Amino acid sequence: MRLIGLSKLAAEVSKGRGLGFIGSGNDQSNLETLLDGAKTLLEDAKLPTANGTLPVGVGFLNWGADLSTALPSIEKYKPAAVWLFAPRTIDNLVEWTERTRQVTNNTSRIWIQICSVEEAINVTKACKPDVLVVQGIDAGGHGFNHGASIISLMPEIKLAIIRLVKTGELGQEEAPILIAAGGIADGRGIAAALALGADGVCMGTRYLASDEAEIAMGYKREVLRVGDGGQCTVRSSVYDTLRGTTDWPEHYGGRGVINQSYHDAMSGVDWEENKRKYAEASKEGDRGWGVDGRMTTYAGTVVGLVKLIQPAQEITRSVRRDALEVLANTVEVVGLAIRRSG
Amino acid sequence: MRLIGLSKLAAEVSKGRGLGFIGSGNDQSNLETLLDGAKTLLEDAKLPTANGTLPVGVGFLNWGADLSTALPSIEKYKPAAVWLFAPRTIDNLVEWTERTRQVTNNTSRIWIQICSVEEAINVTKACKPDVLVVQGIDAGGHGFNHGASIISLMPEIKLAIIRLVKTGELGQEEAPILIAAGGIADGRGIAAALALGADGVCMGTRYLASDEAEIAMGYKREVLRVGDGGQCTVRSSVYDTLRGTTDWPEHYGGRGVINQSYHDAMSGVDWEENKRKYAEASKEGDRGWGVDGRMTTYAGTVVGLVKLIQPAQEITRSVRRDALEVLANTVEVVGLAIRRSG
Repeated sequence: MRLIGLSKLAAEVSKGRGLGFIGSGNDQSNLETLLDGAKTLLEDAKLPTANGTLPVGVGFLNWGADLSTALPSIEKYKPAAVWLFAPRTIDNLVEWTERTRQVTNNTSRIWIQICSVEEAINVTKACKPDVLVVQGIDAGGHGFNHGASIISLMPEIKLAIIRLVKTGELGQEEAPILIAAGGIADGRGIAAALALGADGVCMGTRYLASDEAEIAMGYKREVLRVGDGGQCTVRSSVYDTLRGTTDWPEHYGGRGVINQSYHDAMSGVDWEENKRKYAEASKEGDRGWGVDGRMTTYAGTVVGLVKLIQPAQEITRSVRRDALEVLANTVEVVGLAIRRSG
Repeated sequence: MRLIGLSKLAAEVSKGRGLGFIGSGNDQSNLETLLDGAKTLLEDAKLPTANGTLPVGVGFLNWGADLSTALPSIEKYKPAAVWLFAPRTIDNLVEWTERTRQVTNNTSRIWIQICSVEEAINVTKACKPDVLVVQGIDAGGHGFNHGASIISLMPEIKLAIIRLVKTGELGQEEAPILIAAGGIADGRGIAAALALGADGVCMGTRYLASDEAEIAMGYKREVLRVGDGGQCTVRSSVYDTLRGTTDWPEHYGGRGVINQSYHDAMSGVDWEENKRKYAEASKEGDRGWGVDGRMTTYAGTVVGLVKLIQPAQEITRSVRRDALEVLANTVEVVGLAIRRSG
């Protein structure tokens, strides 16, 4: 979550025994400050880490991120995970993977987020990442404009990885851990993702409504206000065009809450006019969001399940607890149904 | 599955201890023949049914289905379930619900398929259906052009129904059973849907690759051939336009495998030219499908998981068995992980 999930959010998620990520995005000029901030916040937490890494991750947007700027900070702080996403070429991912492993003595884990089975296979073969983040179409913010949700994407990728191992194209020990992203905000979603074959999950939208998310209160209130997440959000390039973040590779769009800017764009209002109104709204602070708002609210289809602003640490602990309860209950109910039906 | 799932498929799914549906669609002229066919096929199976209903369901496309033609057959055969979908107005659903309950002495169950939280709430209040089929965006064939997958749609609808009961707008005993549809083809998908709060699931795409699906072998082979289901399929109105099934309400499109007709439509080839080529391809039999094919292959994003043509009865039994195994394994793995982490 570029510009949203920074040192505080990352540290608190990790304190809740998740793995928090700093969204470094496409600008690494303040990466050292962000990592140093997280390190300071985590100093008293005494979290267990492998090989002495810093127990947070850092996420990069590879179409714009600068490896030479990032590497010294990666080397110095050794984040537990380096998350790569949306490159222009797969060679770029290979270079980031190799250099990161080099400068961290192979301690920082390589997480690569992908959106299709083809991308999963190509990335796995080329980079041998430690983790594949399987992002479904429900995800908030950016991802492929066109694709499946994790309900079918995760099992198909799971089988594809198993096949690579069977055919010997991938060593058994090279099979990546699978993390599901897109549409998960509570215990039900986590339990479902695990059933689909995921080893873990990633949540973004839920943490928008955390004390530590570094966004305007207007943005947070908008997340709480809207519902029927598949209807109130859309994946499109409208918000990128308005905000001038037009460097994303062509097949990526950002899912956000449908607002006046979007309605205007769809009804053919001139882009200059639309941008002018957006610039005006951005001067109105929190009032730029709401029923007639124009400010961007990147969020996933799961936004309708987010109804409360909470500390990130509490969110992290509670969803894990809820997931276990959901799994136990599901097994119990199914078991009962089977006994009843004979 | 209009024109695909008829007497044989419905009967075999029910014999496998699922509930098979006859896709009556928008033309009820042969409904009696279809129900009679299923009845004959089920005569020796001695399946348990509630209140003496026929142990199959019938699905209608309400934008075009004719109630007065359907009712005599519904009255005569009392199908276990009457599935309603895609009406032009909610009043139409109310009329179908009331008349069906009347002529079957309240024995045939009312199933209504919906695609959003708003539709779920409105339909539940207006019709008090026995079952809500919650259809996510991954589904094959027709559904909303725009929406969420079941990963977030099911939990949000589950909570919305609980809220209706809490506020007294719905009696506790009136809360509908929830069935998940869209993106489910195997045990993993079923287990996930149950974790999301579903009471059961509906599968369509998987049964395209059944012996009993009444489609061309070219269609079945195409289902087996394609993979990366989120990339190889798209929801659109292109196939409706080509085939002349243009009566669907505006916000519905049909998800199918991307083919030459679709590529041509997207690249601006004249519709008359596209229709002419489609008509030509339709004379080529099974060769109308395939890499350069033009015949329509309605299928969901889960099509990449379907790799084998099997008897429908075997599919039904095996996915249920697999779902139980997935749930048991998931609980075991999660339990182990917790014990290890202390």
